[in-house]
Amino acid sequence: MSSAAANEAATSNEHFWAVIPAGGAGTRLWPLSRAASPKFLHDLTGTGRSLLQSTWDRLVPLTGSRVLVVTGVAHRAAVSAQLPELPADQLLAEPAPRDSMAAIGWAAAVLEARDPSAVLGSFAADHVIADEEAFRACVTTAVAAAEQGYVVTIGIEPTHPSTGFGYIELGEPWAQGAVATPGAVHTVTQFVEKPERARAEEYLATGRFRWNAGMFVVRATVLLDLLAQWHPELAAGLRALAADPSSLTEVWPGLDKIAIDHAVAEPAAAEGRVAVVPGGFGWDDVGDFRSLGALLRDADGMPGVRVLGDASAVRVVDGGGVVVPGGDRVVAVVGLDDVVVVDTPDALLVMSRERAQDVKAVVDALRAEGRTDLL
Amino acid sequence: MSSAAANEAATSNEHFWAVIPAGGAGTRLWPLSRAASPKFLHDLTGTGRSLLQSTWDRLVPLTGSRVLVVTGVAHRAAVSAQLPELPADQLLAEPAPRDSMAAIGWAAAVLEARDPSAVLGSFAADHVIADEEAFRACVTTAVAAAEQGYVVTIGIEPTHPSTGFGYIELGEPWAQGAVATPGAVHTVTQFVEKPERARAEEYLATGRFRWNAGMFVVRATVLLDLLAQWHPELAAGLRALAADPSSLTEVWPGLDKIAIDHAVAEPAAAEGRVAVVPGGFGWDDVGDFRSLGALLRDADGMPGVRVLGDASAVRVVDGGGVVVPGGDRVVAVVGLDDVVVVDTPDALLVMSRERAQDVKAVVDALRAEGRTDLL
Repeated sequence: MSSAAANEAATSNEHFWAVIPAGGAGTRLWPLSRAASPKFLHDLTGTGRSLLQSTWDRLVPLTGSRVLVVTGVAHRAAVSAQLPELPADQLLAEPAPRDSMAAIGWAAAVLEARDPSAVLGSFAADHVIADEEAFRACVTTAVAAAEQGYVVTIGIEPTHPSTGFGYIELGEPWAQGAVATPGAVHTVTQFVEKPERARAEEYLATGRFRWNAGMFVVRATVLLDLLAQWHPELAAGLRALAADPSSLTEVWPGLDKIAIDHAVAEPAAAEGRVAVVPGGFGWDDVGDFRSLGALLRDADGMPGVRVLGDASAVRVVDGGGVVVPGGDRVVAVVGLDDVVVVDTPDALLVMSRERAQDVKAVVDALRAEGRTDLL
Repeated sequence: MSSAAANEAATSNEHFWAVIPAGGAGTRLWPLSRAASPKFLHDLTGTGRSLLQSTWDRLVPLTGSRVLVVTGVAHRAAVSAQLPELPADQLLAEPAPRDSMAAIGWAAAVLEARDPSAVLGSFAADHVIADEEAFRACVTTAVAAAEQGYVVTIGIEPTHPSTGFGYIELGEPWAQGAVATPGAVHTVTQFVEKPERARAEEYLATGRFRWNAGMFVVRATVLLDLLAQWHPELAAGLRALAADPSSLTEVWPGLDKIAIDHAVAEPAAAEGRVAVVPGGFGWDDVGDFRSLGALLRDADGMPGVRVLGDASAVRVVDGGGVVVPGGDRVVAVVGLDDVVVVDTPDALLVMSRERAQDVKAVVDALRAEGRTDLL
């Protein structure tokens, strides 16, 4: 199917809604990402659009304004400001984080109440996708599969044996004719948690494993009915909340705190209710400064130097890595390869790129010291 | 001689004056040291006193207030502010830099006019000395030798085959009885320029070479008379200037720009007029951030981390090196050994410690771009 046809197919589905959970502090992107200004609000790719805005831009060709954003109450104003096209009643503000099932389930219940035929696709606000047309083609296929009553996930073609993501094992491809794109949908044999390195290498060698990027496409009613099978109180609570939005502060604190993977995807897979659309479209969760660096291009005249921000503020002598200048200050790097320098008004991070995961240790130490002003 | 006796011997010499040339930008300590705020004005050892103030503190036990400071006109106010005890007529302000012979020669001419028996000792404003009593004992010996009409230098015991300093080759020790401390003074065979590494290693192997730290002790009249032998116009100009201070702006630009080593020390050595007092007292010229780091102690609870400034602003995870925090910002270092991080309000330097000399490349680039605001 051409991508134009894919777009047409999707936009013709007036029941398809995008749900964007906008949460998560992005701790490993400290000091750029903060609790008060998390990762999804930042332009981390130098495009002039935040990750949230880029997520919106990527989805509206499929959904128009049929987008729900679920965020924390602390970020409601910032999300509204970044997405002026988002209608106020499509921005759900959680009083407190209750994990992904409550967030996506709340959106599902709101959509079910508006339209019993609604299909939702949930896509995190802080991921990056290189080939947006290929992404939309996958989503279009997933929507077609979801209409048949399945929980449909998108399985990302792994590019390396990552230990940072969960994996999805592909089963048999669906029979020809079941969806518009033959062979594009598979059953799911199992979801597996983040593996050790050796296990991840085994997964890649089989060719049957895909990364779990937390993308789920499913009819709202199917999602809530499945949830009701295993977590009846949570499903009932979310449906009650949709029926009476004024009950939010009363209902919310009592909701189970559980990830959608555990609450629905894994048990549903065991019952043969989950399908996967394999996709390869340059997905990245921008999980740390190493992956952020990989998304940027070399600065003009500075091979090996990736700059997020004003490259004219950066001077490098015999070195390279990722530099995030903070403003008017000049940042000079001498004789260091693969360094990460992140300059912000109240905190400076200097790190080796291969230790990008370990910025968490700094954040943990600051938290232990009560330096919440810096987190 | 005990150090108490040395001090007494020196302070009893009412003709001995300290001359402190306070110049030099300290380029390799950028961005801490700037043209407008050079190295000697900074506390680089965390003692609460600048290098200039520490130089003063080290000399006054020998000279009392008999100290002349020669600095650039741009730094006159800062020097006065840092040395409130310095009489105004003992602060000479050069209209422009004319190298070390003009600076020290001007001081010599001023002293000669005040006291024909004056002995001057010239000691840079931006060096560090660990064992001050041993230093003063050496100077006392040097003063005694200088009274006999010699140009006396102090030769620093080398601790490694440095390629960053010139060397002094020791000749025969003076005959017993020539000065108070037998064997403490040697003739000088030659001065040699900064050597290549292999040559420096040869020097150390002989045991006869000492570092030239630019310390000269000499009677003012002897210095000027020797200068008059090889550079008569310069000697005459300096003496005319001392006779008529109002001629400064007229005379100064016409003075030869030459180092005291070339103008006097080297030719005088060839004539047997130079002596050297070998000394080992933990001297360092704090030439770059590597040597600055070596002067600091590990921060509390952070082995391998040397902090100049507020160590409570520094967080290190698996790493070490030299950190100069700039103020209220937290500086976090992760997974980097031997790193140098220097944080200032308008410029940040991140460097490997072994490349400490190469900060000059950044300064040169900024100068080429006309960024004098940062230099």
